[in-house]
Amino acid sequence: SASLCVCPPAPVAELPPPAPSPTEEERSDAAVPPPEPTLTYPLEFEKFWQAARNNPHDFTAWTELLQYVEQENHLFAARKAFDAFFAHYPYCYGYWKKYADMERRFDCSRETEEVFERGLQSIPLSMDLWIHYISYLQSTLDMNLPESIQKIRGVFEAAVAAAGMDFRSDKLWELYVEWEREQGDLRAVTGIYDRILSMPTQLYNHHWEKFKEHVLHNPPKDILSPEELLWVQSKLATDPVPKPPEPEGTEAPPGEDLPPGVEGKAADLDQEKIRELVISMRQQIYAQNEAEVSKRWNFEDGIKRPYFHVKPLERAQLRNWRDYLDYEMAAGSHERTIVLFERCVIACALYEEFWIKYTKYLENHTVTGARSVFQRACGYHLPRKPNIHLLWAAFEEKQGNLDEARRILRCFEEVVPGLAMVRLRRVSLERRQGNLEEAEALLLEAMHANEGLPLASFYAVKLARQACKVQKNLGKARKVLVDALEKDPDNARLHANLLEMEFGADVRQNEGNTMSCFERALRSPLPDEAKLIFSQRRVEFLEDFGSSIHSLLTAYDEHQKILKQHAARKRAPENG
Amino acid sequence: SASLCVCPPAPVAELPPPAPSPTEEERSDAAVPPPEPTLTYPLEFEKFWQAARNNPHDFTAWTELLQYVEQENHLFAARKAFDAFFAHYPYCYGYWKKYADMERRFDCSRETEEVFERGLQSIPLSMDLWIHYISYLQSTLDMNLPESIQKIRGVFEAAVAAAGMDFRSDKLWELYVEWEREQGDLRAVTGIYDRILSMPTQLYNHHWEKFKEHVLHNPPKDILSPEELLWVQSKLATDPVPKPPEPEGTEAPPGEDLPPGVEGKAADLDQEKIRELVISMRQQIYAQNEAEVSKRWNFEDGIKRPYFHVKPLERAQLRNWRDYLDYEMAAGSHERTIVLFERCVIACALYEEFWIKYTKYLENHTVTGARSVFQRACGYHLPRKPNIHLLWAAFEEKQGNLDEARRILRCFEEVVPGLAMVRLRRVSLERRQGNLEEAEALLLEAMHANEGLPLASFYAVKLARQACKVQKNLGKARKVLVDALEKDPDNARLHANLLEMEFGADVRQNEGNTMSCFERALRSPLPDEAKLIFSQRRVEFLEDFGSSIHSLLTAYDEHQKILKQHAARKRAPENG
Repeated sequence: SASLCVCPPAPVAELPPPAPSPTEEERSDAAVPPPEPTLTYPLEFEKFWQAARNNPHDFTAWTELLQYVEQENHLFAARKAFDAFFAHYPYCYGYWKKYADMERRFDCSRETEEVFERGLQSIPLSMDLWIHYISYLQSTLDMNLPESIQKIRGVFEAAVAAAGMDFRSDKLWELYVEWEREQGDLRAVTGIYDRILSMPTQLYNHHWEKFKEHVLHNPPKDILSPEELLWVQSKLATDPVPKPPEPEGTEAPPGEDLPPGVEGKAADLDQEKIRELVISMRQQIYAQNEAEVSKRWNFEDGIKRPYFHVKPLERAQLRNWRDYLDYEMAAGSHERTIVLFERCVIACALYEEFWIKYTKYLENHTVTGARSVFQRACGYHLPRKPNIHLLWAAFEEKQGNLDEARRILRCFEEVVPGLAMVRLRRVSLERRQGNLEEAEALLLEAMHANEGLPLASFYAVKLARQACKVQKNLGKARKVLVDALEKDPDNARLHANLLEMEFGADVRQNEGNTMSCFERALRSPLPDEAKLIFSQRRVEFLEDFGSSIHSLLTAYDEHQKILKQHAARKRAPENG
Repeated sequence: SASLCVCPPAPVAELPPPAPSPTEEERSDAAVPPPEPTLTYPLEFEKFWQAARNNPHDFTAWTELLQYVEQENHLFAARKAFDAFFAHYPYCYGYWKKYADMERRFDCSRETEEVFERGLQSIPLSMDLWIHYISYLQSTLDMNLPESIQKIRGVFEAAVAAAGMDFRSDKLWELYVEWEREQGDLRAVTGIYDRILSMPTQLYNHHWEKFKEHVLHNPPKDILSPEELLWVQSKLATDPVPKPPEPEGTEAPPGEDLPPGVEGKAADLDQEKIRELVISMRQQIYAQNEAEVSKRWNFEDGIKRPYFHVKPLERAQLRNWRDYLDYEMAAGSHERTIVLFERCVIACALYEEFWIKYTKYLENHTVTGARSVFQRACGYHLPRKPNIHLLWAAFEEKQGNLDEARRILRCFEEVVPGLAMVRLRRVSLERRQGNLEEAEALLLEAMHANEGLPLASFYAVKLARQACKVQKNLGKARKVLVDALEKDPDNARLHANLLEMEFGADVRQNEGNTMSCFERALRSPLPDEAKLIFSQRRVEFLEDFGSSIHSLLTAYDEHQKILKQHAARKRAPENG
């Protein structure tokens, strides 16, 4: 369906299928000449293009565009479409594959590789993309050239460096092992197993079994590094158990080549004993790794959708991510925590909460890392979410990058105009820097922009509070609120704030203004309930602070009248 | 029944029964010697006496006491009981009658009269009491003495002066007319009719008919004053209609005695013409009076219980009194308004509202009158009602009688201790006079008196506000509230007031104290909802006025946590 971004990955509880070998189509590409790219765009391209560009957050519009360019098999249109699409949805690895396939069909090998590289930079944790890339290389490179082997090994190394710590990276490791075995480098195979055996992954047990097979079916000298072989031999030689003690001083000096005679001695030793020791030496690592796996098993089991999707995630999965991240942060490995965060923000890319959690975590470790996550989150995935932008601006403000903080907030306001929290943050940023005129100007601008709307009164309150409390100008504050009340006379918040300010001044000198404020509220079109409260507060004010018993009695009488009117109006609908 | 104070008055729509003539019993009193008063109190007197004295607001206890002393026929016990009773219920005219009857049974004529006079001073609008008094005088005075006639006429005059304006005063007027007729003074009868004909009363039409009879059945010269007779004769003489013109210059010169010849001329004139003119002259007064009656008819009809009773009045009757009083005040006759108020506060003696309405009305006319009504209301009928006492004290304060105002509030507090509104009025009275130490002492006393109760915190808030706003001592105010919070840590009002004060100070200099206040509230055992509000306000405070982006972010994070905890706790009971 159109809203489905990617095909669900292969079931993870089973063994991964072998790496795809070049398909019929791919093989035939070499024989049949590729299609010629057309320069003019296909007929309906403009329609789909505009639909997507005008609603960049409508995922379906994009998938329709991408489907169209693929079906038209139009390279330039496809490039334009994919490039624009990935500016919004860089985590859609399925489309990166389609993009690469398209370039490949037109035999643009440099561009194909570029697409793979861009895709993997965008989503370096995508096993599928790495595997697709490697299989592409395997089917296109001339394997007779040694640099091809180097190239592929280099990409495997890059892949496991980027994604090998993923709990679900087994298929990649497996492919790497297989490939090295095919290259005939059994010591390299052992080296890969040694890395994977300490890596908590889903198929940790499978790798262990495969490793044991590898040890049992190959001569130790072919699979072990000279150093390990030497160490194992010396270990067996000094072993007090069944073996007869070896003469002293037989330790080989360190060096690249085995000294003569050592080989002879090794050959004498029981190959089985060596294998036993090689395996038993790794037994504890395996056991430790198993313990790590078991700690994460339930969390991993709770991840039902590890890939990106625009559809919302269920609450249980969100909770699972939260708990898992908390666990990994507490467990203390920075590297694993980062990998888990990266996996999380793929599956939960549209959830501000996880990006915020990520930046919070990073802020304590690396300013640069945190900034880059802010940039990714705000630049690609959450361009319309205010909180992450507010945090980013606050982050830059804390680093002293005031202009960057200003830019972030201003640009976000252009994208999503009218959010009070953003405008208030811009105001408070200026206020903290002592730019009171600029703070005031921002509030005034917001007031005018919302003329006639409730928000105008909201900003009037903020402006008045600034004038009163920061600029210490009660007269100015009063004017702001009185003007606002002329436009919005039944806004209880305006009345209440004016009252608070009048009361905040000297209680004796300002009694007249305070009383005017009460009277304005009671004359206003406020609802009865609100007037009752103002009337009650007027009586209290006069009892506690008023200068005249007359005013107090009058206010008390009026309060009784308001109470009665209110009671009568409340009864009326019942009777009528 | 015991709770019934008086027998309902005679039905008012019928003609009143003739004034009671001396009863058999009363007549025989003169023959049989009266009982000798006993000095020792009867056996159970103490029990009934204590019951009433200990619960002076338990009306039944009093009626049981009065019933007992009557049944025991014990004069001294009765005097003690009645005197004490009337200090609480002076409007019970039935008991005044019983008291007078008791004195009379013991032949204490001076005391009997004294009781009548005291009773009529207490309730001068009681027709029954006036009539009872007059009939007592008629049956005891020696009618052969001219001073007896003078005495009775004097009492009749006092009665109609005090109660003759009452809409239901017909019986009294009727008796007065009958009595004067019996004395043979027909001109006095005419005089009384002339007063009654312009008085809106229930039986206004009956009086008119009786007046016409009086004119028709008596010779004009017997019933008219010489002045009226002269005027009527001259009027008829100058009348252009049937009579032949009289020679000029026959007009009598003014003088006390009729000039000779006039009598002769009068005798010549048709008696019927005189009667016609005498009646028709009063026709317009009667019509005007009828109009006045009709305006009041529905109000009067709504008064179902004109006498005092401790049982509550129905809402409809209360509303009728309100409307009637408003009408009479607007109609503009001060005299009639006063009479209506006096009638009202008999029927509604236990309703503070009408006494307050009365004093409000009087304050604009007569300070002395208002004071006397306050004294009656507070001294007898509403000794435990706070509002009327507060108004009385305010009234005296406005007159500059500060010590009297203080005394009223202090004495009321002794009778009904612990009312916050009264204590606050005492405080504000002192504050208005600039006695800040006394105001503070009163608040402190109230705080200590309520130690451990919510009221202690209430007074702490008041004291702190005085310290902060009037004494301008934020440190002192803070100490008051912080101390109160140690005793009452989950009082949101205390937290909120402290916050308001901290925020009221210079926002930059006082940021630390303001933040401490927020933190105290959030650490406190306040309910979640209250903490949420404080947390929200902390974020707003830091956004609008805080100096540091760090604190703002921290506060924001903590607010999110509180929101989540709150949501979780709200969900919990549903799931559990």
